[in-house]
Amino acid sequence: MIDDLLEFLRFPSVSADSKYKPDVEACADWLTNRLRKAGLEASKIATPGQPVILAKTPHSPGKKTVLIYGHYDVQPADPLDLWETPPFEPTVRDGRIFARGATDNKGQILAHVLGVEQALKEKGELPVNVTFIIEGEEETGSPTLEEFLKTYAKELAADIIAISDTGMIAPGIPTFSYSTRGILCLEVRLRGPSADLHSGIFGGSVANPVTVLTEMIAQLHDADGKVTVPGFYDRVKPIADWERELWAKLPYDDRQWLATTGSPVLSGEAGFNTLERVWARPTAEVNGIGGGYQGEGPKTIVPSRAFAKLSFRLVPDQDPTELRTTITKFLTKICPHSVEIEILYQHQGRPYLVSPDSDYGKMAQRALKQTFDRPIAFVREGGTLPIIQSFKDVLGLDSLLLGLALPDAKVHSPNENFPIDNFEAGIRLNRHLLEEIAKGT
Amino acid sequence: MIDDLLEFLRFPSVSADSKYKPDVEACADWLTNRLRKAGLEASKIATPGQPVILAKTPHSPGKKTVLIYGHYDVQPADPLDLWETPPFEPTVRDGRIFARGATDNKGQILAHVLGVEQALKEKGELPVNVTFIIEGEEETGSPTLEEFLKTYAKELAADIIAISDTGMIAPGIPTFSYSTRGILCLEVRLRGPSADLHSGIFGGSVANPVTVLTEMIAQLHDADGKVTVPGFYDRVKPIADWERELWAKLPYDDRQWLATTGSPVLSGEAGFNTLERVWARPTAEVNGIGGGYQGEGPKTIVPSRAFAKLSFRLVPDQDPTELRTTITKFLTKICPHSVEIEILYQHQGRPYLVSPDSDYGKMAQRALKQTFDRPIAFVREGGTLPIIQSFKDVLGLDSLLLGLALPDAKVHSPNENFPIDNFEAGIRLNRHLLEEIAKGT
Repeated sequence: MIDDLLEFLRFPSVSADSKYKPDVEACADWLTNRLRKAGLEASKIATPGQPVILAKTPHSPGKKTVLIYGHYDVQPADPLDLWETPPFEPTVRDGRIFARGATDNKGQILAHVLGVEQALKEKGELPVNVTFIIEGEEETGSPTLEEFLKTYAKELAADIIAISDTGMIAPGIPTFSYSTRGILCLEVRLRGPSADLHSGIFGGSVANPVTVLTEMIAQLHDADGKVTVPGFYDRVKPIADWERELWAKLPYDDRQWLATTGSPVLSGEAGFNTLERVWARPTAEVNGIGGGYQGEGPKTIVPSRAFAKLSFRLVPDQDPTELRTTITKFLTKICPHSVEIEILYQHQGRPYLVSPDSDYGKMAQRALKQTFDRPIAFVREGGTLPIIQSFKDVLGLDSLLLGLALPDAKVHSPNENFPIDNFEAGIRLNRHLLEEIAKGT
Repeated sequence: MIDDLLEFLRFPSVSADSKYKPDVEACADWLTNRLRKAGLEASKIATPGQPVILAKTPHSPGKKTVLIYGHYDVQPADPLDLWETPPFEPTVRDGRIFARGATDNKGQILAHVLGVEQALKEKGELPVNVTFIIEGEEETGSPTLEEFLKTYAKELAADIIAISDTGMIAPGIPTFSYSTRGILCLEVRLRGPSADLHSGIFGGSVANPVTVLTEMIAQLHDADGKVTVPGFYDRVKPIADWERELWAKLPYDDRQWLATTGSPVLSGEAGFNTLERVWARPTAEVNGIGGGYQGEGPKTIVPSRAFAKLSFRLVPDQDPTELRTTITKFLTKICPHSVEIEILYQHQGRPYLVSPDSDYGKMAQRALKQTFDRPIAFVREGGTLPIIQSFKDVLGLDSLLLGLALPDAKVHSPNENFPIDNFEAGIRLNRHLLEEIAKGT
């Protein structure tokens, strides 16, 4: 089984870089064949972007249908010199498989495939119908997947979706993610003088767009680290008592978190702890800023232009479309007339939350318990999975997020890895999940 | 004569960027040879930085000696895409020469060289002794020139210094600058996380160094546009009544100034008009800012680092060395512990002020009248010539600032230019000036 994963990991299926297009295709072909070998009817379907793989076990009417989502594309591997072993030559060390994509998402999705194969071999059939949808553009924001869902809605009809593409709070702790944050990305551009000016000749007589930009961004937060945009928190769902209680018991350590970030200290919105801040509170973040002279040494100019890339992580029940207007109004209002402002909308995704105690949630909980034999960690996810909202919007389906990524999996970083234990747990989890869904409530 | 200037302008003698070092050297060689061709004894002298060119006409005892200062280095030319014609391919359009360095300072210093050459050719000798000192580090703050002055003090002995590196109030108006602003350049660098972090997984739990930087810079000014650093204005000399009276009569127009800058409106420190703001009031300016993702589209990270290049224009009698400490303390104090701060000192220069009615001032006034046949504008200079203060300190000499830069010369900006009229006026001015100094009071 590990050999299968090693083979899967050898494809440099980097979707962001067109020079890997042949590798992405080869990887999709390999996976399609592997699904066929496992006993599924599988096809590689061309899209305007990378191909999507659809695969089905023999479906029987009367059985529930589980749609399992994953992706076979991976993040770029650079900076290459920081890898201890080459990213596309998977290597086993200390019980972990090191390779780009080991955790995100090849190890996790292949565990589901192998779980299905095992059950088919042992029992001849599954307790539920299973459809796999495995895409090749997750790492570039799934730009064509929503359209695909619309086109293949009939093929994708199901009762529930299962996804293993999120984190585990710690090794061996079954982790149920029941919420993700949403996102809104904007770029603010300011123009002052029509060209960079000599700061001696003109400095003091015209507004400096960089100075103005800093003054605007500084107004985004108050002294308590709260976002000051009027109405920003209006729809924010308070953290429930049961959540605070459960989170307080998690095997989580601020010191470990601090070490992972490498920041001098942890800090954020007053009145909340770290997990609350990243899981259940919205943020306003500057992802990039630029303006004026960027080179070595000084250059005494009043810059002509300045930009800031802003992203807002949103939580239930904030609405990115509504906030896009609210934030645009706010930025326009606080921008003085001494500069010209332009706001570029980039992309957005809604936050997501379903109760872990829904019917399907309970089935997933039973499967997690059987797989790991430990109390379940109920967590939210600070990141955004826009695809979940598309599943809800287009197919009307909720998603169970049963992740197997460890905090030190180095997802998107050099030396990405996946423990063999987690790979095997993933195979067991798949089997238990399908059985529990078949049993029902 | 224009061909000489075009040739001079073709050297990309950018002193701030070490990749242009060979061009700086080649430019210095060209100029040394041009001075020899003009009949001077010239040498290129190596320094720890860029070479200095020293050149002398045959000196006779009994004649006064005029030291003419200029620089052959230029500002970086970026942003290149805003130039209508390439910065180092000088082009003549509408009576102006467009190129980096056309006005600042190649056009102006070459006018002096050609004035001396003309007089030598016509008369066989000059009415005064002339020494040229032409440096290659003015645009990086002349870091090694003061040491050079000390070493070559004997060679540089003179009665007065003449410099054409300042502005004319309007085309055809002889302009006498009697004061310059000083400068202090710093770079502030902040570090938050040890590497860029995923803004979903970590956003909200650690300080974003870009956000912190904007909050710090926003604290540099109050709502009236005044610099908030404690003690910043303590030594600022108030504007004298005679200055306000003369300035009010100058052929100056806010609308023209606004058009030159291309800014939406003029703005600055409350209680002062435009000329007062740029000539007699200090500023705090951000010359460049950067941090996080600079490319196209969004990238959802919490950046690891951020920087801002700050420059403070100073006026008599502010002291850059004192303010360097004051400002460093202020920035360190307002920097929160959630990031690490590093402040890099870059360079500084003292402000300068002498009466235009000194003896040499009166001689210069006569030369200006003869050259332009118009009433003289007495102005201050918003820019900085740190070297003037070094001349005073090391050589004990005052400087006559007889500038030829027009308000729309686009010095330090794309499309820098120098009118051929000003180039020719500069040659005449050199000849009248040397004659008037020979005549004395």
